[in-house]
Amino acid sequence: MPGQKPIKVALLGCGTVGTEVVRLLTDHAADLTARVGAPVELAGIAVRRPNKHREVPAELLTTDAQALVESDVDVVVEVIGGIEPTRTLLLQALRSGKSVVTANKALLAEHSGELFEAADSTGADLYFEAAVAGAIPLIRPLRESLAGDRITRVMGIVNGTTNFILSGMDSTGASYGETLEEATRLGYAEADPTADVDGFDAASKAAILASLAFHTRVTAADVHREGIAQVSAADIAAAKGLGRTVKLLAICERVSGGGADRNDTANASEFISVRVHPAMIPRTHPLAGVNGAFNAVFVEADAAGEMMFYGKGAGGAPTASAVLGDLVAVARNRVVSGRGPRESAYAALPVRPMGQTPTRYHISLDVADRPGVLSQVAAVFAEHDVSIAAVRQEGRVDDASLVIVTHAATDAALRSTVDKIGGLPVVRDVVSVMRVEGEES
Amino acid sequence: MPGQKPIKVALLGCGTVGTEVVRLLTDHAADLTARVGAPVELAGIAVRRPNKHREVPAELLTTDAQALVESDVDVVVEVIGGIEPTRTLLLQALRSGKSVVTANKALLAEHSGELFEAADSTGADLYFEAAVAGAIPLIRPLRESLAGDRITRVMGIVNGTTNFILSGMDSTGASYGETLEEATRLGYAEADPTADVDGFDAASKAAILASLAFHTRVTAADVHREGIAQVSAADIAAAKGLGRTVKLLAICERVSGGGADRNDTANASEFISVRVHPAMIPRTHPLAGVNGAFNAVFVEADAAGEMMFYGKGAGGAPTASAVLGDLVAVARNRVVSGRGPRESAYAALPVRPMGQTPTRYHISLDVADRPGVLSQVAAVFAEHDVSIAAVRQEGRVDDASLVIVTHAATDAALRSTVDKIGGLPVVRDVVSVMRVEGEES
Repeated sequence: MPGQKPIKVALLGCGTVGTEVVRLLTDHAADLTARVGAPVELAGIAVRRPNKHREVPAELLTTDAQALVESDVDVVVEVIGGIEPTRTLLLQALRSGKSVVTANKALLAEHSGELFEAADSTGADLYFEAAVAGAIPLIRPLRESLAGDRITRVMGIVNGTTNFILSGMDSTGASYGETLEEATRLGYAEADPTADVDGFDAASKAAILASLAFHTRVTAADVHREGIAQVSAADIAAAKGLGRTVKLLAICERVSGGGADRNDTANASEFISVRVHPAMIPRTHPLAGVNGAFNAVFVEADAAGEMMFYGKGAGGAPTASAVLGDLVAVARNRVVSGRGPRESAYAALPVRPMGQTPTRYHISLDVADRPGVLSQVAAVFAEHDVSIAAVRQEGRVDDASLVIVTHAATDAALRSTVDKIGGLPVVRDVVSVMRVEGEES
Repeated sequence: MPGQKPIKVALLGCGTVGTEVVRLLTDHAADLTARVGAPVELAGIAVRRPNKHREVPAELLTTDAQALVESDVDVVVEVIGGIEPTRTLLLQALRSGKSVVTANKALLAEHSGELFEAADSTGADLYFEAAVAGAIPLIRPLRESLAGDRITRVMGIVNGTTNFILSGMDSTGASYGETLEEATRLGYAEADPTADVDGFDAASKAAILASLAFHTRVTAADVHREGIAQVSAADIAAAKGLGRTVKLLAICERVSGGGADRNDTANASEFISVRVHPAMIPRTHPLAGVNGAFNAVFVEADAAGEMMFYGKGAGGAPTASAVLGDLVAVARNRVVSGRGPRESAYAALPVRPMGQTPTRYHISLDVADRPGVLSQVAAVFAEHDVSIAAVRQEGRVDDASLVIVTHAATDAALRSTVDKIGGLPVVRDVVSVMRVEGEES
């Protein structure tokens, strides 16, 4: 479109993703112009240490991110990460009418409300496909494709590092510590792996997915979060023994009807539950085959039924692809004076605390191999009102392995059951206690 | 949004999908209003026989589709199917500035250029998520999420009827005829199954996917099309013997560099190839596990890498979900005076004819079990410049089975090779010849 005023872009941050964004903007310039209807021009790149970025044009580099945001750019692309100064910069951009494309899951999971309000005050766009599951189109399907349906469940593997570690433990039988070490050595885990292994990254993503799926503001603080550091080789072995495997899942559910008795939710007829925790899933489940650094997300909706999205969940190029897709969308919106979807949080569903969210459990015990053991154990379950779905007992040389899978029970009921069982003289060891997902209850 | 002017919708057609559209519009009315920013109001439903539609409000029914399109509606939703009178009605709608949501793959695969031009003449929207793979968000990811990337390949199972039949043949060993009969009895195949089993439906979808993926107008006539009627129980058995299964695939590829010598494409450095045919794929391939009426599509892009989309590819509710998602999008665009993506066909890449598109082949022969047979057969391959990738020979009582998998070869070279091999005295029967996909060549 010769003659068409270019869309000017400010890039904040130039790490792995930023460098790829610059490369794609350069390599695909002609295509992007045709797709947007105007040239897309990189106006500046804000970095902390300009001399560390020899792979991008030096004349675009600046250390003054604020001045870049305040300049006459149309779009701000943010790949710095972290909460501050990013939050302040993006609020400033949106309040001055600049559209924002961001990959910042932590920021969105804390401050999306504030960011959307800033966008609304000027009619600017806020896009964030790259914030969840890298290149896999997931935000747009939830926010747009399924906007006429009623989403009931989103369940997926959204963190590559923990998936790499759990896949490794499953295939080698090694411990969590050994496998984490290997992942760090190979570059799949960061030097400080906390954000990944303790589930913070997955919890941010779960908050974003739940917000979109249920038209409700959900922040990271609303997400029940358990990491993988407690997953033992015994858990993995116990899962294998029953044709299951262990994955760190992010689960967002719409729950109808009662079951909650918190005062503030007493009158609600619908709740949501958002959680991140390791769980055993059947090896035949499509998520079981998602290995290494790949991500996959299941979505269930009333009319659409079950869908799955699969692909590379992280990395410079895949994340940059998602950023560029959003950049094309917001730039197109500028050209036609249109606007993308706004925040949709009208439903404002209450979040049900994990203590009231029943899930199924897999419990593996070492027990004495003699008559009456099963009935003693079963009596404890009955006493706590935890219903047993399946039992498998196998004799060994001088003891027996007893595996119990429950029907849905709350954490509290399960914990008291397990505590009491652990104290029975016939039970030698509670080998593994883990949630079970992906099966009919 | 009380006080906001409603978005008036005309529905053309009220079969399985239309009925579900009406149901969702009614059941989700409050949600749709909140998501769109204005009430979405069904203004009329055009049908041929009003007395046959007792499940929708009688006062909305009309037999005069043209008058409904000409009335003061904002959006026309089309679920009639077929080319005429649909084409004329939609052109009329778009030319008078009404946005169109359609599920009509055959119409889009023939006339999308004309429809987009009509939309462009007034700035109306043309959305068609429901035209390919039912509820699976696929159009929006290709058209928007990957708009900043370079898509190299789209390969998938996009027809549920043929997939149901091939899954059935694979699990029972029954013939094509028997399995088709069963599919018809169960309602998975229509009384006249031609559009499905001869690949017309999949070819329309392939044309739509290729158009979006490669920013090029591709019509059904550009698609090389082979159906499944020739797939024999012997083909299925031969596939099984080597850990493969047979699927009807739609494949859209970007091919760089030479290899074509048609005059009109002689100077092009890039081509596309679009085809629908049965092919053997490894049982370990993610598409191999897609059974029955499900659809799944692989997409590969330079930066994003490999992605897969999976879900229900047909049926009233899933298709209606896709229609409603589009309806929310075009209605939102009306509310904010914005506009969705326009046709993007600027790349205008030449389509390479199938005769020049090399693919790999699996050939299964019954041969005499005596020395020298393999060398005679191999010599014929060498003579036609078809390179052999793998061979497996197995002796039986008085003959032998010889399976050959080739490297990529053109149809023409393969056909002459097979013709000549069929004439060799040592070859008793050419049991099966079929393309192989989803493996490294």
